[in-house]
Amino acid sequence: MTFGLDRQLQAWLEEDVGCGDITTEAIVGAGARTKAIIHAKAPGVLAGMAAAERVFELLSDTVTFRAKLADGDPLTATSVIAEVEGSARAILTGERLALNLLQHLSGIATRTAALAAIAAPYGARLVDTRKTTPGLRQLEKYAVRVGGGSNHRLGLYDAMLIKDNHIKVAGGIAAAVELGRRYASHMTKIEVETESLADVQEALTAGADVIMLDNMSPERMAEAVKCINHRAVVEASGGIDETTLAAAAAAGVDVISVGALTHSVKALDISLDIGDIK
Amino acid sequence: MTFGLDRQLQAWLEEDVGCGDITTEAIVGAGARTKAIIHAKAPGVLAGMAAAERVFELLSDTVTFRAKLADGDPLTATSVIAEVEGSARAILTGERLALNLLQHLSGIATRTAALAAIAAPYGARLVDTRKTTPGLRQLEKYAVRVGGGSNHRLGLYDAMLIKDNHIKVAGGIAAAVELGRRYASHMTKIEVETESLADVQEALTAGADVIMLDNMSPERMAEAVKCINHRAVVEASGGIDETTLAAAAAAGVDVISVGALTHSVKALDISLDIGDIK
Amino acid sequence: MTFGLDRQLQAWLEEDVGCGDITTEAIVGAGARTKAIIHAKAPGVLAGMAAAERVFELLSDTVTFRAKLADGDPLTATSVIAEVEGSARAILTGERLALNLLQHLSGIATRTAALAAIAAPYGARLVDTRKTTPGLRQLEKYAVRVGGGSNHRLGLYDAMLIKDNHIKVAGGIAAAVELGRRYASHMTKIEVETESLADVQEALTAGADVIMLDNMSPERMAEAVKCINHRAVVEASGGIDETTLAAAAAAGVDVISVGALTHSVKALDISLDIGDIK
Amino acid sequence: MTFGLDRQLQAWLEEDVGCGDITTEAIVGAGARTKAIIHAKAPGVLAGMAAAERVFELLSDTVTFRAKLADGDPLTATSVIAEVEGSARAILTGERLALNLLQHLSGIATRTAALAAIAAPYGARLVDTRKTTPGLRQLEKYAVRVGGGSNHRLGLYDAMLIKDNHIKVAGGIAAAVELGRRYASHMTKIEVETESLADVQEALTAGADVIMLDNMSPERMAEAVKCINHRAVVEASGGIDETTLAAAAAAGVDVISVGALTHSVKALDISLDIGDIK
Amino acid sequence: MTFGLDRQLQAWLEEDVGCGDITTEAIVGAGARTKAIIHAKAPGVLAGMAAAERVFELLSDTVTFRAKLADGDPLTATSVIAEVEGSARAILTGERLALNLLQHLSGIATRTAALAAIAAPYGARLVDTRKTTPGLRQLEKYAVRVGGGSNHRLGLYDAMLIKDNHIKVAGGIAAAVELGRRYASHMTKIEVETESLADVQEALTAGADVIMLDNMSPERMAEAVKCINHRAVVEASGGIDETTLAAAAAAGVDVISVGALTHSVKALDISLDIGDIK
Amino acid sequence: MTFGLDRQLQAWLEEDVGCGDITTEAIVGAGARTKAIIHAKAPGVLAGMAAAERVFELLSDTVTFRAKLADGDPLTATSVIAEVEGSARAILTGERLALNLLQHLSGIATRTAALAAIAAPYGARLVDTRKTTPGLRQLEKYAVRVGGGSNHRLGLYDAMLIKDNHIKVAGGIAAAVELGRRYASHMTKIEVETESLADVQEALTAGADVIMLDNMSPERMAEAVKCINHRAVVEASGGIDETTLAAAAAAGVDVISVGALTHSVKALDISLDIGDIK
Repeated sequence: MTFGLDRQLQAWLEEDVGCGDITTEAIVGAGARTKAIIHAKAPGVLAGMAAAERVFELLSDTVTFRAKLADGDPLTATSVIAEVEGSARAILTGERLALNLLQHLSGIATRTAALAAIAAPYGARLVDTRKTTPGLRQLEKYAVRVGGGSNHRLGLYDAMLIKDNHIKVAGGIAAAVELGRRYASHMTKIEVETESLADVQEALTAGADVIMLDNMSPERMAEAVKCINHRAVVEASGGIDETTLAAAAAAGVDVISVGALTHSVKALDISLDIGDIK
Repeated sequence: MTFGLDRQLQAWLEEDVGCGDITTEAIVGAGARTKAIIHAKAPGVLAGMAAAERVFELLSDTVTFRAKLADGDPLTATSVIAEVEGSARAILTGERLALNLLQHLSGIATRTAALAAIAAPYGARLVDTRKTTPGLRQLEKYAVRVGGGSNHRLGLYDAMLIKDNHIKVAGGIAAAVELGRRYASHMTKIEVETESLADVQEALTAGADVIMLDNMSPERMAEAVKCINHRAVVEASGGIDETTLAAAAAAGVDVISVGALTHSVKALDISLDIGDIK
Repeated sequence: MTFGLDRQLQAWLEEDVGCGDITTEAIVGAGARTKAIIHAKAPGVLAGMAAAERVFELLSDTVTFRAKLADGDPLTATSVIAEVEGSARAILTGERLALNLLQHLSGIATRTAALAAIAAPYGARLVDTRKTTPGLRQLEKYAVRVGGGSNHRLGLYDAMLIKDNHIKVAGGIAAAVELGRRYASHMTKIEVETESLADVQEALTAGADVIMLDNMSPERMAEAVKCINHRAVVEASGGIDETTLAAAAAAGVDVISVGALTHSVKALDISLDIGDIK
Repeated sequence: MTFGLDRQLQAWLEEDVGCGDITTEAIVGAGARTKAIIHAKAPGVLAGMAAAERVFELLSDTVTFRAKLADGDPLTATSVIAEVEGSARAILTGERLALNLLQHLSGIATRTAALAAIAAPYGARLVDTRKTTPGLRQLEKYAVRVGGGSNHRLGLYDAMLIKDNHIKVAGGIAAAVELGRRYASHMTKIEVETESLADVQEALTAGADVIMLDNMSPERMAEAVKCINHRAVVEASGGIDETTLAAAAAAGVDVISVGALTHSVKALDISLDIGDIK
Repeated sequence: MTFGLDRQLQAWLEEDVGCGDITTEAIVGAGARTKAIIHAKAPGVLAGMAAAERVFELLSDTVTFRAKLADGDPLTATSVIAEVEGSARAILTGERLALNLLQHLSGIATRTAALAAIAAPYGARLVDTRKTTPGLRQLEKYAVRVGGGSNHRLGLYDAMLIKDNHIKVAGGIAAAVELGRRYASHMTKIEVETESLADVQEALTAGADVIMLDNMSPERMAEAVKCINHRAVVEASGGIDETTLAAAAAAGVDVISVGALTHSVKALDISLDIGDIK
Repeated sequence: MTFGLDRQLQAWLEEDVGCGDITTEAIVGAGARTKAIIHAKAPGVLAGMAAAERVFELLSDTVTFRAKLADGDPLTATSVIAEVEGSARAILTGERLALNLLQHLSGIATRTAALAAIAAPYGARLVDTRKTTPGLRQLEKYAVRVGGGSNHRLGLYDAMLIKDNHIKVAGGIAAAVELGRRYASHMTKIEVETESLADVQEALTAGADVIMLDNMSPERMAEAVKCINHRAVVEASGGIDETTLAAAAAAGVDVISVGALTHSVKALDISLDIGDIK
């Protein structure tokens, strides 16, 4: 659905362009044309091409965006990503938003790819969290998939994650899962956050579809995995990063969630060079 | 204008909450109340309190948000930031968005403060760029100010920044500035990007209000500053970070712009602990 | 989240009121006050009170809505549902939208309750479908819950339902489920539509979470239920109504979906009587 | 004005599709193409073709919608309504919304046609009311016209309907009509609700443009019609359905309004069959 | 419906305030309070008080707006219109929009009152047209009523005005009115534009509810009025202003429409004086 | 950015067209085509062509708008502005909005041109103010530029204008400018309103970029200009019109601001003639 993205891109263009790109309007003729190259200046994984292309198209019917690479492709410090040709005004005006999106989303895909590569040999999935930038969840979750990760739930509405506070209110894991199952659609999975093997056992008995091992040591995780024995999906969670991921994966969990994939993004260096304007 | 922020927060709540926080609806009674503490888990500078407070207010009339610290206050790993009291459902449902905002904006304020502290002894201002997260420019630029930085232009509409491409089209700096001045309001400043001392001289002669020294060495910057001699504001720009900032400031520039303040944000670790739910 | 509903109610008020309720503006003074009674004129189940209350509140700060019954309560032809007191203009202007909502949603809850009562003795859940009125899905699914039913998936985004066309493209149920599982979040359930016992067996082997028996006879359903033996949730679907529901439920399925709950709604007769206007 | 409808259809697509049709994305290739047939499974009158076509166009530029029948055409249980050809993803994703609209609007047109056929021999117009589904008034009123009915006023803003409460406040029909006429534009018609022949006489004397006979017996209606003698348009109203419509029409009224045309809609059974996907 | 106006006012505040009133933020403390007087500097008729009040309320909960005069009251060059007390920031920031609205709407009311005073002795109504400022139709039509005028139709949707082009297409007035009546609701009036007495006669015979005399001389108008003899409402139209209005009214028409009421508005001089800020 | 204008035009079309142009729908066939001429009926300067063209394009893909003149071109009472050809319905329905825009914007351009012609020989710029019609600022400021004027600041966000109230709060001009400079971006200009030569001197010393001479006599202005001596831009302001503009310009100010350019607009008479409809 292009129109969902379009509405966002229009709002973002208005944020940047407002009443007009006065520098460009003053200096560049309305009919001037040019050709620009978008290229990477650092290695990584590309993400965000559809959004970048659409930025220019929304600004002018006359801009042609020729992708040289696709989302998911590896980038080196010299990769040419796309050629953009047409209205010089549209290219100059759209440059910043297009780059902001490419740099942010490629930054996510790049780090996801690095972490997923650590998890892959163990057969574990790397997933994101709800710690996304407000307004960008859908794009950021897309970038995680581009980088070889998978997505956790979309939001509070599409799956149940019973946390310690819910458990306290319900008076225990069994009671909480029971309340959850009664309220949930038959199409909704229920995950339970656990902090001990006793919790894990209780969640398993209660019939949780997914069991989250929260901030457990690799040894504890391995015990939990053994105890669960494929009767539920097992997710490791809690401050996991490059230094601790392999141990978690080695413990045999199915899924490892990492908030930093989206809450602490380092932009990938991507640039746009404009040729002669005629 | 609260309503501008409100509309954004509502969109972001809908992004996360959608048709409802099904876990909380299933387990926590509509009338249940609780008290939560928002606290820092790492040192930094606080930013985003108004947005965080408003998240809970939008979810329920009954939530009281008691700020214990204010935007700009320093945080330690044990600082209590706020107490939130009222509807347990609203607090559980709003927790993630409030934290996502606090963590992102405090992350910006924290890094800005660190860099501004380097620039301050030299009397140089640290400023942001247009490399902000789409949709968050106003909040991110606010966080930069909270951290002790200043803002560059808001977007393409409120000031002129004549870059190399504009100069090429116009056929030189003098011609570009002349075109800019004719088009611009008498209330609009004109900045020119320069790459050499010759450029600087030409921009100065053309009457630029602000001269950007793009990717110059500290020595070159010092020469430019001397040449300009307070006849224009001088801005240093181009990949400046913790390691290169002091040298740029020592060169005597008035303003130093750093894109990473907003394009590569590391979330500050902030948490919400919920007490008993009754 | 009241603001989600508020935005819809405002749009619907504008649809009806436009530039103003000219009859009321012409005849009823801006300061006139009255008291009205909302009451049922037919038996059924009440749904939609929050929306009805909010209609009047949006039109005037001075209107008090006193609910006498709550969503889910049974109605007789003489039940008093609520008293509305305050601005006579607001009450006259809001009457139609409030009643349109109450009548439509109570119509859904009433029919759901009738069908759920048939299914209940067999332990089967009655659920809705995506055959809802455009723009009203969330309210209609809520009314189904009020009537004692449950919800199927919210839309195309929160669960997978692999239908015959998907199966054809994938080249079989096993392949389709495999593709689905690879793409889906670990928090997403996968349902497969089946038309024969062979399909059921294949879906079960492929690891479907939910198996839909599409347009099967009660006997066939009973066989499928036996074959599945609690290894997946079983859903009966396909033109089921008052005359065929008991047989489906007796066949032992877990869930019965009925599109007519929301695609063919008979409004429940609910009226608003206005007292003296002063 | 396509863009008015477009905005609604986009909102409705987002309601159903949200972050994406995950089943289809998982299984059907982005470039896959197919051809589908929309056909009726029950007799009736077709309505909603423009909206159905637009659903697919909004999802993909590549879908071709070939209408085989037009709004207002009679349907049998085997009528082919349209062929849809192009992106398989777009067709699968748009199917439900397109059908929901066609089924609902054709349901309205079908019942309208049945009732209008009863009224026609008597020269009476069948009209709708403001008892429409919130958000769908314009489309539902269109479906009434497609079915051979006419529309009552659009909302509270475009014509005056003076009801019993207005009359009570004004202190009588004469006073109410006088207030109405003073406030109304010279382009606005004034209708008065009457419950007795005395009311009818008073409304006529006051100069009402339209007189509504509310819940009167056919005999009383005939007397009123005679008394009015073409000096005002006469509308019959109040719980009229298939069993009572002929008598009302035979009484000589000009217009008969039926709320059930839009408040209790039975969806017409319409289906979409998808061919091979390549 | 405050929320309709609110949404407009919010958009207009964002147009003026954007990312913030930087002058006021820099100089006036967030807690500073003041008291301001809104007063007229020229004679006229006041209109727009509700909108002006709401501007300040939207900017701050703490502002009190005390109206000293009401819409429709006469103004002298020294009239005090309102006192505004509270947040100095909100008052300074809202001043311009509040005044822009008051000045524009009072300008319309003032001219309307002057023209209506000419028409009144003849019993003729002064009405507006569709020549309103885009986006302001509802407020401008309200200001016309405040000034003692009445409104023509709201837009193209609520009444029929058959113009010369429609007549040409239909092949004559009789045919056009017949087509109109068939399509129109029984609640819709039909007006016909006429340019000669023959046209008038044909429109009358066709049963037009309202007959517009377009650009006729006063003598011709008088003949037309005589010919129509109260069988239809008579409207004079076409470039009528202060110099020609009396003659048109004296010709006996019921209604005189003047586009300049809204298409050429002279702002009434209204000012806001701010007292000490503390 | 067409989409910004598009959204406004759509809202304005909905304001006028609402549920449909019922007269045209009743009488003109959906397939009928025609050709219309837009022409001026009074001399002036043309503005608003892009908006007028877009009105018709939004209503129908089939309309061709052939501009015969461009924004800024002089108009006589017989100038042909454009030919519009295509769907007769779209042309009839869009006529009013297209004309309302052309007449309003050309009215602004026409008066701006007249005043700018007075200022030009003195080398003074004519500029607008924030006294624009709510919702139309961007278009009106554009029309001012078309007429040969320039723009003052866009709103409260893009430049600082320190007025008497700000000065009072700060305790003097020097203090106010100092506060302003500290808060403002280095890209933001600061203007100070002055009422005496002492004020002017203080503003100059404080380093104001622009000095506004508020309601000064031409003699006083000349003294101020001499005193400022090109160290700041000088703006004359305060009730300046055709009779006083030359004297202000002769006093040597750089810029003259005139609120009436946008707050009291006289529509330029522009008309659309429709040819045969087939």
